[in-house]
Amino acid sequence: MRTIDWVDGAVELVDQTALPGRFHVIRIDTVDGLVDAIRRLAVRGAPALGVAGALGVALAARDETDPLSAAARLRAARPTAVNLAWGVDEALGHLDGGFEAVLGRALRIRDEDVEACRAMGERGADLVRELTGRDRVRIMTVCNTGGLAAVERGTALGVVRTLHERGQLTEALALETRPLLQGSRLTAWELGRMGAPYRLVADSAGPFLLARGHADAVLIGADRIAADGDTANKIGSYALALGARRAGVPFVVVAPETTVDLATPTGAGIEIEERDPEEVLSVRGARLAPEGAHALNPAFDVTPHDLVTAIVTERRVIRPDRGERP
Amino acid sequence: MRTIDWVDGAVELVDQTALPGRFHVIRIDTVDGLVDAIRRLAVRGAPALGVAGALGVALAARDETDPLSAAARLRAARPTAVNLAWGVDEALGHLDGGFEAVLGRALRIRDEDVEACRAMGERGADLVRELTGRDRVRIMTVCNTGGLAAVERGTALGVVRTLHERGQLTEALALETRPLLQGSRLTAWELGRMGAPYRLVADSAGPFLLARGHADAVLIGADRIAADGDTANKIGSYALALGARRAGVPFVVVAPETTVDLATPTGAGIEIEERDPEEVLSVRGARLAPEGAHALNPAFDVTPHDLVTAIVTERRVIRPDRGERP
Repeated sequence: MRTIDWVDGAVELVDQTALPGRFHVIRIDTVDGLVDAIRRLAVRGAPALGVAGALGVALAARDETDPLSAAARLRAARPTAVNLAWGVDEALGHLDGGFEAVLGRALRIRDEDVEACRAMGERGADLVRELTGRDRVRIMTVCNTGGLAAVERGTALGVVRTLHERGQLTEALALETRPLLQGSRLTAWELGRMGAPYRLVADSAGPFLLARGHADAVLIGADRIAADGDTANKIGSYALALGARRAGVPFVVVAPETTVDLATPTGAGIEIEERDPEEVLSVRGARLAPEGAHALNPAFDVTPHDLVTAIVTERRVIRPDRGERP
Repeated sequence: MRTIDWVDGAVELVDQTALPGRFHVIRIDTVDGLVDAIRRLAVRGAPALGVAGALGVALAARDETDPLSAAARLRAARPTAVNLAWGVDEALGHLDGGFEAVLGRALRIRDEDVEACRAMGERGADLVRELTGRDRVRIMTVCNTGGLAAVERGTALGVVRTLHERGQLTEALALETRPLLQGSRLTAWELGRMGAPYRLVADSAGPFLLARGHADAVLIGADRIAADGDTANKIGSYALALGARRAGVPFVVVAPETTVDLATPTGAGIEIEERDPEEVLSVRGARLAPEGAHALNPAFDVTPHDLVTAIVTERRVIRPDRGERP
């Protein structure tokens, strides 16, 4: 199964808003259809957004009278994940070669992502063993960083998958990840499909369960990694990093090289997407708060590099805990 | 409005499972009806549980053939909040005097709670001004510690109310408090009724918003305070304490003297209630996770005293940050 792909002249992707209730593949053949899918999180996850951005430019090169303007709409659909802008720009670099050249680059990005996720899984699993000194480990994670966040396998959850395939996973503790519940809906669905032992926990329980010794390592993905190692990721990552530090548990970021943004010196320069307050005020359409309630809904946070033990990419391990920088 | 009271020979309480959709007072005239109401959180909050426990013993003294056994059922209905056991034991101490003596003690506990909450509000608001050096403040809080958690006004949210009445509240940031959403359902309802400016935030956003300077102080309640100042409170409090420490923001516990449990030397000795995993797997009856999903659901956490700036009771301010102990 691939989360996003190019099939017979259109983008096909798993509609993640329908999971876990329904597995449904949608077919998109316009740029604006793809922008809408990105905005409403039918496709999400930094690596998958990179592929989506590139394939979107292929659609633009084929169908749009002003492909640059279409590309700008794609790039602006989500502000925090650098991969989306990166995928758009990579594909745009081939615009002079026409649709076929753009599509060719987009498909290479897709293939490179598959290979990168496999490599991160192997390297990450090796690193977890090294950092914990354990043959079997309990991993805490947040949001969804599995195959659904990429083309296949994923980043942090890809490492969990590799650990499970190696027989080294005792349990995954997955944060439910309010407000959109990517943990409860998507990560639980993936862990169930791979037959891995897991339990869901409320986001607020993560740091306390680390304090009580319930996990041997925290693995998270990333939406943007600044030049100093500061890491933007799903809201809640920073709280886990604080909890991991206090508990003496390794805190590991798993992300492809394309997530590293050397043009952004520190985390202070990363734009944090604020999403619709209604996401906090309701759940799956059911209103929770009183009429007239207000909310503040930052979708991401920034973990300062001094709280990051290691960053795993498809090419290397960076150790901020030893003063290394991306 | 009183959250819990004795009216014409029975316990009357606001059914908090119906809020914010419906304001509904239920009347309970049996011990087992009260045990059920406590278990399903129709009445909750440490101070309110103290009153409930004492009034329950009054019902037992009047109606039960074995009031001691009935009292044991009341005491066991929730394990973490010391106030419930305290209220039961205080009332039991008057059992020899018969129903009227027991009821008299229970009603004094009710009246003392009203007075204690008023005193905590004043002392807490003074302390916030002292700690922050600000005339107007933004307060972050978790769960519901307002009038709905006590008889009137409440503890931490009672301080917020006092600040609002004094014209010193710029904004309250209330954590939604998964899994049971006491923040979204109850605290938002109370803040709306008092006309205070507030926004709800996802629990996981709390520590990051502190890092970004969105609040001047964190105020929480407590279910049990050990002799060394370690504080058990709603799950998520510990993560806020870590975030407050990193951000240099005061972290203040507001609770009546009855919450201090000198018989428990440290937080390690506090039993943490684990509630039904289904609370995490669904919201207000709607299933979130796939079939077959598991969850771990600790309802409370323990904040070590070294992360607590101050503890405010109706009688005093204890400063763990200066080495003071309860």
